[in-house]
Amino acid sequence: MKTLNVGMIGYKFMGKTHSNAWRQVDKFFPVAAKPRLHTICGRNKTAVQAAAKKFGWDHAATRWQDVVNNPEIDIIDINTANDTHAEIAIAAAKAGKHVLCEKPLALNVAQAWAMVEAVKKAGVVNMVCHNYRRIPAIAQARKMIAAGDLGRIFHYRARYLQDWIVDPEFPLVWRLQSKIAGSGTHGDINAHIIDLGRYLVGELSEVCGYMETFIKQRPLPGSKTKKGKVTVDDAVITLGKFKNGAMANLEASRFAPGRKNHIQIEINGSKGSLVFDFEDMNRLKYFNRADPADRQGYRDIIVTDSTHPYVGAWWPGGHIIGYEHTFVHTIFDFIQAVVKGKSVQPTFVDGLQNQIVLEAIEKSSKQRRWVKVA
Amino acid sequence: MKTLNVGMIGYKFMGKTHSNAWRQVDKFFPVAAKPRLHTICGRNKTAVQAAAKKFGWDHAATRWQDVVNNPEIDIIDINTANDTHAEIAIAAAKAGKHVLCEKPLALNVAQAWAMVEAVKKAGVVNMVCHNYRRIPAIAQARKMIAAGDLGRIFHYRARYLQDWIVDPEFPLVWRLQSKIAGSGTHGDINAHIIDLGRYLVGELSEVCGYMETFIKQRPLPGSKTKKGKVTVDDAVITLGKFKNGAMANLEASRFAPGRKNHIQIEINGSKGSLVFDFEDMNRLKYFNRADPADRQGYRDIIVTDSTHPYVGAWWPGGHIIGYEHTFVHTIFDFIQAVVKGKSVQPTFVDGLQNQIVLEAIEKSSKQRRWVKVA
Amino acid sequence: MKTLNVGMIGYKFMGKTHSNAWRQVDKFFPVAAKPRLHTICGRNKTAVQAAAKKFGWDHAATRWQDVVNNPEIDIIDINTANDTHAEIAIAAAKAGKHVLCEKPLALNVAQAWAMVEAVKKAGVVNMVCHNYRRIPAIAQARKMIAAGDLGRIFHYRARYLQDWIVDPEFPLVWRLQSKIAGSGTHGDINAHIIDLGRYLVGELSEVCGYMETFIKQRPLPGSKTKKGKVTVDDAVITLGKFKNGAMANLEASRFAPGRKNHIQIEINGSKGSLVFDFEDMNRLKYFNRADPADRQGYRDIIVTDSTHPYVGAWWPGGHIIGYEHTFVHTIFDFIQAVVKGKSVQPTFVDGLQNQIVLEAIEKSSKQRRWVKVA
Amino acid sequence: MKTLNVGMIGYKFMGKTHSNAWRQVDKFFPVAAKPRLHTICGRNKTAVQAAAKKFGWDHAATRWQDVVNNPEIDIIDINTANDTHAEIAIAAAKAGKHVLCEKPLALNVAQAWAMVEAVKKAGVVNMVCHNYRRIPAIAQARKMIAAGDLGRIFHYRARYLQDWIVDPEFPLVWRLQSKIAGSGTHGDINAHIIDLGRYLVGELSEVCGYMETFIKQRPLPGSKTKKGKVTVDDAVITLGKFKNGAMANLEASRFAPGRKNHIQIEINGSKGSLVFDFEDMNRLKYFNRADPADRQGYRDIIVTDSTHPYVGAWWPGGHIIGYEHTFVHTIFDFIQAVVKGKSVQPTFVDGLQNQIVLEAIEKSSKQRRWVKVA
Repeated sequence: MKTLNVGMIGYKFMGKTHSNAWRQVDKFFPVAAKPRLHTICGRNKTAVQAAAKKFGWDHAATRWQDVVNNPEIDIIDINTANDTHAEIAIAAAKAGKHVLCEKPLALNVAQAWAMVEAVKKAGVVNMVCHNYRRIPAIAQARKMIAAGDLGRIFHYRARYLQDWIVDPEFPLVWRLQSKIAGSGTHGDINAHIIDLGRYLVGELSEVCGYMETFIKQRPLPGSKTKKGKVTVDDAVITLGKFKNGAMANLEASRFAPGRKNHIQIEINGSKGSLVFDFEDMNRLKYFNRADPADRQGYRDIIVTDSTHPYVGAWWPGGHIIGYEHTFVHTIFDFIQAVVKGKSVQPTFVDGLQNQIVLEAIEKSSKQRRWVKVA
Repeated sequence: MKTLNVGMIGYKFMGKTHSNAWRQVDKFFPVAAKPRLHTICGRNKTAVQAAAKKFGWDHAATRWQDVVNNPEIDIIDINTANDTHAEIAIAAAKAGKHVLCEKPLALNVAQAWAMVEAVKKAGVVNMVCHNYRRIPAIAQARKMIAAGDLGRIFHYRARYLQDWIVDPEFPLVWRLQSKIAGSGTHGDINAHIIDLGRYLVGELSEVCGYMETFIKQRPLPGSKTKKGKVTVDDAVITLGKFKNGAMANLEASRFAPGRKNHIQIEINGSKGSLVFDFEDMNRLKYFNRADPADRQGYRDIIVTDSTHPYVGAWWPGGHIIGYEHTFVHTIFDFIQAVVKGKSVQPTFVDGLQNQIVLEAIEKSSKQRRWVKVA
Repeated sequence: MKTLNVGMIGYKFMGKTHSNAWRQVDKFFPVAAKPRLHTICGRNKTAVQAAAKKFGWDHAATRWQDVVNNPEIDIIDINTANDTHAEIAIAAAKAGKHVLCEKPLALNVAQAWAMVEAVKKAGVVNMVCHNYRRIPAIAQARKMIAAGDLGRIFHYRARYLQDWIVDPEFPLVWRLQSKIAGSGTHGDINAHIIDLGRYLVGELSEVCGYMETFIKQRPLPGSKTKKGKVTVDDAVITLGKFKNGAMANLEASRFAPGRKNHIQIEINGSKGSLVFDFEDMNRLKYFNRADPADRQGYRDIIVTDSTHPYVGAWWPGGHIIGYEHTFVHTIFDFIQAVVKGKSVQPTFVDGLQNQIVLEAIEKSSKQRRWVKVA
Repeated sequence: MKTLNVGMIGYKFMGKTHSNAWRQVDKFFPVAAKPRLHTICGRNKTAVQAAAKKFGWDHAATRWQDVVNNPEIDIIDINTANDTHAEIAIAAAKAGKHVLCEKPLALNVAQAWAMVEAVKKAGVVNMVCHNYRRIPAIAQARKMIAAGDLGRIFHYRARYLQDWIVDPEFPLVWRLQSKIAGSGTHGDINAHIIDLGRYLVGELSEVCGYMETFIKQRPLPGSKTKKGKVTVDDAVITLGKFKNGAMANLEASRFAPGRKNHIQIEINGSKGSLVFDFEDMNRLKYFNRADPADRQGYRDIIVTDSTHPYVGAWWPGGHIIGYEHTFVHTIFDFIQAVVKGKSVQPTFVDGLQNQIVLEAIEKSSKQRRWVKVA
């Protein structure tokens, strides 16, 4: 079997999830090529060497340029902070590598455009890692909607709620600084429910957003007395209209006590409804208007059956999977695409489109009016 | 429209629920005769007069014999402590009154037999008030099982859990004294899930029970220092076999913190399953094995549709009803039966059969072996 | 005990719920005066006479003016279509009657202003029937928020979803005609979650709404071939800002298959969160950030304890109540206010304020921008 | 870091879960020694070689004796059919290997005794793989009970329900043949809830069981016409008494449509209750009687916080884990025990004790009476 050498830039939270996925994928899925964890890259030599050992990479590097230009490498996997995605991805494309990049694709639309152009020009397989598309329940929802099971869609209602910065003493980490993160809740988690809306319902035509920062100042990391300004949003709520006429209602916040990683989605159509909650990610609720009147009710589908997408590769029905499995599914499809030289959704164009929506919402929030999604 | 004069013996908890039902029934249901709250009866004159005023009865009496023998009265409704049911019901039957009696029908099988004989001889309409049969979700479950929607039944699994006597300082009220109550948890709440099992699945052929009293001594009511012996069971668990081959697993306890009036029932059959929880009594969960494999899941049916039993008489779909409505449904069917001179389930024979099962379980618990349900 | 004579205008759905409440209130609550169901009024003589008999009213009338001017009447209860509220309420106030009026208070702000002026001038007790304020779980939530248990409020997130007009063949009833109903989903159900937001969180300062009509034409009632134009909204979603800085996200729709009367509310504050769902109206979920880290979780409070608002008057813990009980609670408080000559929330001023918010949302939806709540 | 060479006997379902655990453990947990997947063993050469490649083992063997006697091997991990556990484990112990063995430990008590003697004599670390003990929610429950948070335990109520053989056409696989499997539902899944009861509540003193086989004949595997006799139980329900006075109610069945791997446990004590459901394995429900009366409710704890057992090694809060992670936790603790030369629960003695309970239940079911747990 062919081997694909992977170079991964970044080794923190996403580095851990991606490393796991590269290691696990061929143990469970019928990959067309076997990935080799060739090189992991980070600026701190000691830390990246420890990560290489811990996560099972053959080599550790400190300059991403070396990895990108290493002729042995087939795939570049980008997990760094958002402000570095564009530069690395464009260089990787130029070097002819296939590129998998964490979301949000870029800091802004301009960067995302450049990235799309680069991968198109290079003709490399490109994918933005919206791993939630490959939660089996979400893939099942997509399948059902595509089959027309919901009929005409009226509503897409999505919340992504967390609570990790409710405490005003939580420090001003990089995710709370616009220079590095681009935005706060918006690019980090609103981006996910925008992507799922695009995946499940279609393209948005117009949006009207409202972004808020509840805690304006926070302690500088490591300091007990000094504070710095929070330059990103804490929460963002959005009205939207899809091209197909459906209404969108989005809410993302890091200020919802008790909600840890709560993505709740409800889609209502003329034939039925679907409901998903990430904290119960192995379930999908489905209401079918065609059921007999006295027997109608949301079906609580445990999405662990061999007939459901992806999940049959793991365990028997009723044996649930978790968060990291979504990355394995993503990387499985990416590998297959690389081997076959085919496109695999979500591409950089999806990442760009997501960025366009993100920017339209930001503009709309500033101008306090509806904005067309260009 | 014809009027039916009701005489009600007892005026406490069940007196309140029954009074409400007699008052409400003709406001919502198409009764064939209008009930008149003629006389309420209790031993304490002041208290029963206050109850008459509060609950809307025309007269108050202190001797049940006077009510039973009052020629104006058509129906006797018995809500007194368990040790008085037999005497009152037999006298009422002899006086030619139709009789509605709270559960458990009697203190023991012998009493229940005598009651059945009395109503049969008198030819009066007789009903034991197992109001939970007329929870719309339960009536819907019965309809589905009778229609064969569950196929062959394998399992009846029922729990009735409460927590009101977990505190060892809770006093020795009448419900904890076998002389008055007959038994504890057993006759009070196990009786309900036995009845529901008989209603939904069929007759039991054999049982094996285990009764336990966790707190052996409790403060005498009104006393801070004196204690008395608890002479009833705190909890009872039971294995059982139905005549149709299904297995029964019953559990009743007043020692389950956080469970207030938790009746959870699950029935598994060859074609599907049903699940009910009284604390969410407006819902019924239904699993249909015939649904497509990737769309199977327990349906969460909100049993408030006009197609569901009883509930259409109240409010539009989604507007839930509560505990007391089950008594209104019961009394509606009772009135219709009285006017038509027909039998209405559950009859005193059902009450007797329930008592037979209760006694078999008690015997089995004492002898520590299986006992046939005679 | 003093008697209060009630004249009720309207006898359909709300007539049924209000009649029940007037009948039931003194059976369960310690009223300071006993209400007498004096006269029910409706334009169709036969129908209103039948309603009087069915619901227990002493008299039936066909002209509301006669009822309003009947010197025997103390209280006017208005349940008619929205376009008649103002005229009747103003006349009732002029006649010195205390007035209870169904929501929405009026067709528009101008009408609502006139109603407020009329009751102020007359000095009569006035209440708009936002019965959901007196769901025990909601009253409990209010108590907790008022006590500071949630700290600073960040988010008010509310949905009111139904599905009764998803079928495009559902006819053009009065609720779908703006001339009679004023608006559609907006005034009917969005009004409820606006009111609950004002009750639980505070006054809104700005809103941005988006109203949509999915089915533009519907069959005329009684006709199989003729269609008429739907002149109200089918769904409305709204961003809002409270004066205290909290963010509001509202959604109301009649196009959510499987959602019957689904009011889901979530409030996030610096100390905790509360979640409510009307389809499980006897429960309130509460997350307390002060709980030990490994024991934190949403508490599923069954709001049927004697310590909870209103509910102790009904049944023991765990015995749930239903939809109509909220009207009994409302009318209990209204009676007490009438007897004591005190104000009782929500007053007509609340109804007016609700109308102001409704109009701001409508304006905002037309102008596609944020609008200040005057 | 020291390396531990593992030899694994068996390569099917459990072989897949164990292989994954051996591979993953050092990537997430601070192991004191690094496991090496040295040799996997199975009778079918082609199949075991494929498994070796797929699961990441260095060598494949066809005779377990070779593996057990290979001086390079430190640990023997037994995942074969139940009838082979004893022979392999005893040989492994004799060869001085540390032994991890799948449950049920043996076919019967006699075998289990011999296994316990062998590992004691050899002084090797021994563990029976009751992986559910290391579900984080279960480990948290154990921690809380051990800390006295539940007070005196009254009830242990556990169900393990599946539905994979409801179809009478499902073939007579080895799990349905007593010669190979020992028992059916009983040893396969009842064993799990017995173990959890012992782990969480204590030792059972007496049991009374009822075993049933609903489908007596099934098609022989691969045959369309021939049937064979089902020689194991389909379902088993059990009453039990713990030495500490708590009551046990156990139910295990493969005939519960819609229940895939449904382990529902409820424990009621004098201070509170705990509820667990394996299909939502990342949650634990906790009722605390000490909470204020109007704020009491089952807390829905998402057991993904860094303060919870094991789970902090994986992902941030709210990012759930799945079935296979419980094996990783088990193997982590096993490795640590091997390195430190310490005992690690559950030992073979636990496996024996489980077997003793299993046998007492079987005896009791045959004799239709209570049986003491020796």
